[in-house]
Amino acid sequence: MIQSTKKRSQKAGLLPGTLVHIGERLEERSKITVINYGTEEFSRVEVKTPEECMPLKGKSNVCWIDVTGIHEGETIEKIGRLFNLHPLLLEDIMNTDQRPKMEVYGDYLFIVLKMLFYDEKEKSAIMEQISVVLGTDYVLSFQEKESNIFNPLLEHLKNDKGRIRKMGADYLIYSLIDMIIDNYFLILEKLGERVDNLEVQLITSPKTETLKSIQKLKREMIFLRRSVWPLREVINSMERGESPLIQSSTYVYLRDIYDHTIQAIDTIETYRDMLSGMLDIYLSSVSYKLNEVMKVLTIVATIFIPLTFIVGLYGMNFEFMPELKWPWGYPFVLLLMLVIGLTMLYYFKRKKWF
Amino acid sequence: MIQSTKKRSQKAGLLPGTLVHIGERLEERSKITVINYGTEEFSRVEVKTPEECMPLKGKSNVCWIDVTGIHEGETIEKIGRLFNLHPLLLEDIMNTDQRPKMEVYGDYLFIVLKMLFYDEKEKSAIMEQISVVLGTDYVLSFQEKESNIFNPLLEHLKNDKGRIRKMGADYLIYSLIDMIIDNYFLILEKLGERVDNLEVQLITSPKTETLKSIQKLKREMIFLRRSVWPLREVINSMERGESPLIQSSTYVYLRDIYDHTIQAIDTIETYRDMLSGMLDIYLSSVSYKLNEVMKVLTIVATIFIPLTFIVGLYGMNFEFMPELKWPWGYPFVLLLMLVIGLTMLYYFKRKKWF
Amino acid sequence: MIQSTKKRSQKAGLLPGTLVHIGERLEERSKITVINYGTEEFSRVEVKTPEECMPLKGKSNVCWIDVTGIHEGETIEKIGRLFNLHPLLLEDIMNTDQRPKMEVYGDYLFIVLKMLFYDEKEKSAIMEQISVVLGTDYVLSFQEKESNIFNPLLEHLKNDKGRIRKMGADYLIYSLIDMIIDNYFLILEKLGERVDNLEVQLITSPKTETLKSIQKLKREMIFLRRSVWPLREVINSMERGESPLIQSSTYVYLRDIYDHTIQAIDTIETYRDMLSGMLDIYLSSVSYKLNEVMKVLTIVATIFIPLTFIVGLYGMNFEFMPELKWPWGYPFVLLLMLVIGLTMLYYFKRKKWF
Amino acid sequence: MIQSTKKRSQKAGLLPGTLVHIGERLEERSKITVINYGTEEFSRVEVKTPEECMPLKGKSNVCWIDVTGIHEGETIEKIGRLFNLHPLLLEDIMNTDQRPKMEVYGDYLFIVLKMLFYDEKEKSAIMEQISVVLGTDYVLSFQEKESNIFNPLLEHLKNDKGRIRKMGADYLIYSLIDMIIDNYFLILEKLGERVDNLEVQLITSPKTETLKSIQKLKREMIFLRRSVWPLREVINSMERGESPLIQSSTYVYLRDIYDHTIQAIDTIETYRDMLSGMLDIYLSSVSYKLNEVMKVLTIVATIFIPLTFIVGLYGMNFEFMPELKWPWGYPFVLLLMLVIGLTMLYYFKRKKWF
Amino acid sequence: MIQSTKKRSQKAGLLPGTLVHIGERLEERSKITVINYGTEEFSRVEVKTPEECMPLKGKSNVCWIDVTGIHEGETIEKIGRLFNLHPLLLEDIMNTDQRPKMEVYGDYLFIVLKMLFYDEKEKSAIMEQISVVLGTDYVLSFQEKESNIFNPLLEHLKNDKGRIRKMGADYLIYSLIDMIIDNYFLILEKLGERVDNLEVQLITSPKTETLKSIQKLKREMIFLRRSVWPLREVINSMERGESPLIQSSTYVYLRDIYDHTIQAIDTIETYRDMLSGMLDIYLSSVSYKLNEVMKVLTIVATIFIPLTFIVGLYGMNFEFMPELKWPWGYPFVLLLMLVIGLTMLYYFKRKKWF
Repeated sequence: MIQSTKKRSQKAGLLPGTLVHIGERLEERSKITVINYGTEEFSRVEVKTPEECMPLKGKSNVCWIDVTGIHEGETIEKIGRLFNLHPLLLEDIMNTDQRPKMEVYGDYLFIVLKMLFYDEKEKSAIMEQISVVLGTDYVLSFQEKESNIFNPLLEHLKNDKGRIRKMGADYLIYSLIDMIIDNYFLILEKLGERVDNLEVQLITSPKTETLKSIQKLKREMIFLRRSVWPLREVINSMERGESPLIQSSTYVYLRDIYDHTIQAIDTIETYRDMLSGMLDIYLSSVSYKLNEVMKVLTIVATIFIPLTFIVGLYGMNFEFMPELKWPWGYPFVLLLMLVIGLTMLYYFKRKKWF
Repeated sequence: MIQSTKKRSQKAGLLPGTLVHIGERLEERSKITVINYGTEEFSRVEVKTPEECMPLKGKSNVCWIDVTGIHEGETIEKIGRLFNLHPLLLEDIMNTDQRPKMEVYGDYLFIVLKMLFYDEKEKSAIMEQISVVLGTDYVLSFQEKESNIFNPLLEHLKNDKGRIRKMGADYLIYSLIDMIIDNYFLILEKLGERVDNLEVQLITSPKTETLKSIQKLKREMIFLRRSVWPLREVINSMERGESPLIQSSTYVYLRDIYDHTIQAIDTIETYRDMLSGMLDIYLSSVSYKLNEVMKVLTIVATIFIPLTFIVGLYGMNFEFMPELKWPWGYPFVLLLMLVIGLTMLYYFKRKKWF
Repeated sequence: MIQSTKKRSQKAGLLPGTLVHIGERLEERSKITVINYGTEEFSRVEVKTPEECMPLKGKSNVCWIDVTGIHEGETIEKIGRLFNLHPLLLEDIMNTDQRPKMEVYGDYLFIVLKMLFYDEKEKSAIMEQISVVLGTDYVLSFQEKESNIFNPLLEHLKNDKGRIRKMGADYLIYSLIDMIIDNYFLILEKLGERVDNLEVQLITSPKTETLKSIQKLKREMIFLRRSVWPLREVINSMERGESPLIQSSTYVYLRDIYDHTIQAIDTIETYRDMLSGMLDIYLSSVSYKLNEVMKVLTIVATIFIPLTFIVGLYGMNFEFMPELKWPWGYPFVLLLMLVIGLTMLYYFKRKKWF
Repeated sequence: MIQSTKKRSQKAGLLPGTLVHIGERLEERSKITVINYGTEEFSRVEVKTPEECMPLKGKSNVCWIDVTGIHEGETIEKIGRLFNLHPLLLEDIMNTDQRPKMEVYGDYLFIVLKMLFYDEKEKSAIMEQISVVLGTDYVLSFQEKESNIFNPLLEHLKNDKGRIRKMGADYLIYSLIDMIIDNYFLILEKLGERVDNLEVQLITSPKTETLKSIQKLKREMIFLRRSVWPLREVINSMERGESPLIQSSTYVYLRDIYDHTIQAIDTIETYRDMLSGMLDIYLSSVSYKLNEVMKVLTIVATIFIPLTFIVGLYGMNFEFMPELKWPWGYPFVLLLMLVIGLTMLYYFKRKKWF
Repeated sequence: MIQSTKKRSQKAGLLPGTLVHIGERLEERSKITVINYGTEEFSRVEVKTPEECMPLKGKSNVCWIDVTGIHEGETIEKIGRLFNLHPLLLEDIMNTDQRPKMEVYGDYLFIVLKMLFYDEKEKSAIMEQISVVLGTDYVLSFQEKESNIFNPLLEHLKNDKGRIRKMGADYLIYSLIDMIIDNYFLILEKLGERVDNLEVQLITSPKTETLKSIQKLKREMIFLRRSVWPLREVINSMERGESPLIQSSTYVYLRDIYDHTIQAIDTIETYRDMLSGMLDIYLSSVSYKLNEVMKVLTIVATIFIPLTFIVGLYGMNFEFMPELKWPWGYPFVLLLMLVIGLTMLYYFKRKKWF
């Protein structure tokens, strides 16, 4: 399950601006990769300390520095000093309990996003934070953990000398966000399959576990919604041209990922509606079953209780009970009971009880 | 049922701008029809390749190129190159999992809409995407599959030399949208009939299938709403004069279809409210029935349990039970039981149990 | 019941601008009345064809042409030509399935409203459409059927030489709308009485019919809301001074009917809230009754089942059952059963079951 | 209970501007009090006819004319003529079925508010309307009935020569509204006590009356909300400086009562939420009780039904039943039944049924 | 539990501007602490009367006067006079039943906030009000009761000569708010633990107390929401630069605490959603249990009732019952009953009743 709250409380009592990592530690050590590319050149180097980055930052179009593992305050701080980043921004990078947001600082732009992965074992979505800084000719990205989500992009940057190599840092940012959002649909489809499975299960054999699965999935939708919904605002404000760092030619691409975000939100809402409907069906099928059980009990009891009364009647030990001496008494009573039983069956049949 | 999600995931990991068809393949081969018309002339030619279109594009008022079948990336790309369309726009045409939207590009306007059809076999609505490009003197339309929805319009264009032949491409776009929306009401009426049928069924013989039909119809309303609701915004922004491609004389027509869209949304909302009310009635009628069943059981059991006790009492084998020897014992016990039974019946009658 | 959808589908496939009457035909033939009035004069003439209107249109302050019966396309079209009305406007007049709206055309203003009547037989509200066109010195009104709702106004116009005769056409429009809205309150009071009656019925003898009445009334509220709610926007935009046809001195009157509309909407919302609360009470009273029934069954069964066991015990035919031979066996068993019965009664009493 | 709708229907068919009193007649005769005050002087005179007011209107800072009883159309009309008030305004004063609102007329301002009182007998809130007109140097107030709500203010005006005597008519208006809103909290506390009492009752002994009380209180909240909510907008628009009649130095006071209004709305919303929660608890406690009742029945029946079968078995009259002749048959059967009974009890214990 | 309403009613009938303490008296006597700091100096003095403050107000950067205990009207009034504060502001300080708000007065700014503490005994959140006044070079803070929430800040001010000593009064205000909001997360985590505990309890052993705990926690969420939600607006309006007292360099910090507020609101909303989901699970598990109980009863009763009838049949005392004389009668009846019993068990098994 997507975790609900991180141990943010460890920050209470600390002064603002103190760098504390909030969230699980997902990597042993931070890893820094420096990628330089332009129309003609492409290079990719892994370095050990932030200080090694600066000499590598070439004069090519764009320099992309990707940091995986964000629990080392020192590393983050050094990078912050190298690129002259605001202390609050560094605090936000290390705090994985952020809402997606965009902030405009003087000569750079800061974006926080959520990446989604699917945990096949737990059968639930995992959420990770990625923080991105966009400068005039550089992009910094901070991921909680190494992932292969950007590999196709790297492959393309390396081999293809096409459009992307000519475009600026803002197009790189767009490409990153586009890949993250495309990945959302992968997760949504997996969850969609689970919704469909639950629906089948609900119709064939509703159990109390089905209800718990519905509730669990419903809550996962709440968490997903919380991480996708603010994205809408983020991309919207990027598109509204609030920063000179984003060229107007990139706007059409931003509008495109804006549409995808809306599509993702729509899908989540639809799943939520479906799950609510399934809850109604579950509850009503429980009521329906109770009804069925009661009918069986009522039919059996209502037929046999009067009959049992009659046989009890002739089991009484009164000395003066003339019927007991009649030779046809016994067959007559048997007949009487048969008539009573059939009448009742007919009555229930007419009431459509079975 | 209207499908909930298309296999959009196949796009994850691909770079933006890659042309991939998302959705079911509904046509064998794409078909291209070129229609030219003006005050005096009208021509309609079917061509095989996009390249054949350009020479046909006459000097008359409007050239309408209608493409049915959108799964052939190559065809779409060629048309895109001929009319100088943006790659993202072409991507959107091939992706049938779009929300209705309008986008303003420099010298053309791009509109995505949903067409509704009614599948008589499945008794549910089918949704198809139509993308329309409006240029200064041309209109491109891309449908998933051939349909006869625009036949009356074609007939009119061919025979009538009236208003529509004199009007520009924007009036053609309006006519197309108007026909699509008029078609919505056909679908809504079919669904309305099903709502009415369900209501009758609910009152006469509510079954657990009734509940499932209500839920199915309710979900169909959710999907319809999702495809009609954004249309409101689309037409609204066309009307607000965001593009010089739409002449101000066309605004009054756009306002008209805007009203129709609101009307369609209203109808969908009303059906949803009705279906919710029906769910309440279903659940309460299940409760009511349980109540009825319980009453029958309780009346029968409550009357006969004490009587059975009495007959059991005189079935005991004690040697010293004076009543058993009384000559009037048996008739007296019969009378006693009659009195008890009638008293109980009276009690239940007064409690209005039957 | 207010009808949910009109057969709008007959328009599908027709070109925009085609005049088709949508809705029930409520009048045999259209009737046209021409009323001319000014500070000094007043005349009222019934004519047969639209052509006869024009010569009657005097030079007095205001000419009001009232048309009842809107199914004759030809008549509507002729009037349209005489007053130079837009074809879409004529289409809207004949389509009774419109939302209330106001549209500003160059030199006239078009308003569509709903009138409410109460059908005493069906005990439900009936809705009719009235379309009004406001020109510089004329008012056209199109009603579905003749009604006496405007009689007091006509009476006043005829006899009184006061304010209204001096005012322009916009004041006449205001007076018409005011009378229509005042009429809403008549209907709302009738519906309010039914809500009150239902509430009494719910407390004294809730039946499954009560539930259906609640649902029916709730749906009527939905339809009423749909026809009153847009009125708010209509009057609001009239008041915002969007047209030079409405003099600023009329604004204070428009604000007044705006308040009345809000009041009507408030009343409808309150009724809806009340009906929802009644649904809750109904459902809970059904649960409560089930509880009561179960208690009676449980008390009777729980007391007598053990007693029946005891009498069964001493009805066994074992040869060696010493109790059966004791002279005090029978009285002792009777006493034992009395004690058991009273203990149980005490237990239920303490549990507050009765 | 606060009445839901007043007999507004009596206005249907009347021309706008006709003065008709809508609501209950709460006073025998209208009473007019004229209060004049300035830095140095204070006078308070009761007059019988509106005409007597004008000579009394001194040259001091503020003249406050308070009218109690608003059913006499003639009186209202005379005052209207003296102060040159708009006919629609007079209509609104006499119609007690108004929403709180503020209207700006040329040189005066019209405010309608609701005053709340608590009826100790009916244990519910009573609502009364007060209309206030603010001119440059005068204030007119129209109450439905005499009340002592403004007595502290009058006392203060008479004795204290402080701030209020120096301030203008707008400060008087503020003081009136402040006193009315402070009074709301008195009512809200009384209702809050009832909510708390209901909660205690719900936990100790939930009855079907408790449910009805919850519903009644919930409806009262709906009515309160309707009369307090628009107040927010009223004060907001006064504060936004829409009228030169309100001096900017008064704005800070208006902001203060705006805060109080928000506070009152918040309190009402909280009570509504609490009452909704109580409804859930009630319904679930009914379900819970049914469960308890069923458990008792099931335990007793399930234990004794098999035992009764066994004793019935040995009550059969077959000639060849060897067990009946065994000397240990009877004790063995008793033991068998004891074992069965205890096993069942253990089973229910393990299932945590008691 | 957080108290719902304070005795605000004691203000009804009083003139505006009268200083009355509303809320519990949490401190014996007010305590005043004067803190002066600048780049080089730091001093902290406790004084007894407000008059002693003024001489202490040094020429250093910032003078922070912290008052704990706000029930002494005289003290508050004196401070108000010294700093020339508006009477309504003083009234607000003493009224602890305020919504969080910010008000801009000429040369100072007034902020009301809620502080949250966790009462370990009652296991619920406690809310206290803090009012802050921001002047050009001074900050006044008024707390209901002494707390150690600002101790880290004081420690830092004393020892560190870093950033905060150089910053102005607006940065101090920011630091105070930041500490208050960080504290919210401490409380939210405690409540989050209780939500998790309740969830476990719900699955293992749902009792009627569980329901009451859910409701109690849900209501606490309502109160928390009410005190955190307006904070959003407060910080937002500070950030929008409505006052020259806040330097633009502080905006980035305000944006940071704005994000934290949104995060806190999101967490509260999530808890509310989770609690609602738990309510559904509780209700459905009650239904489910009823179902289980009914099944046991029905199985036992349905099997034994027919068998009891059979043994009753052969307990009848008719003289002519041939079966009774057959030697194989008894074993045959036993076999018959065994067959009936097993058939029923098979039937229930197939219906998946156990």
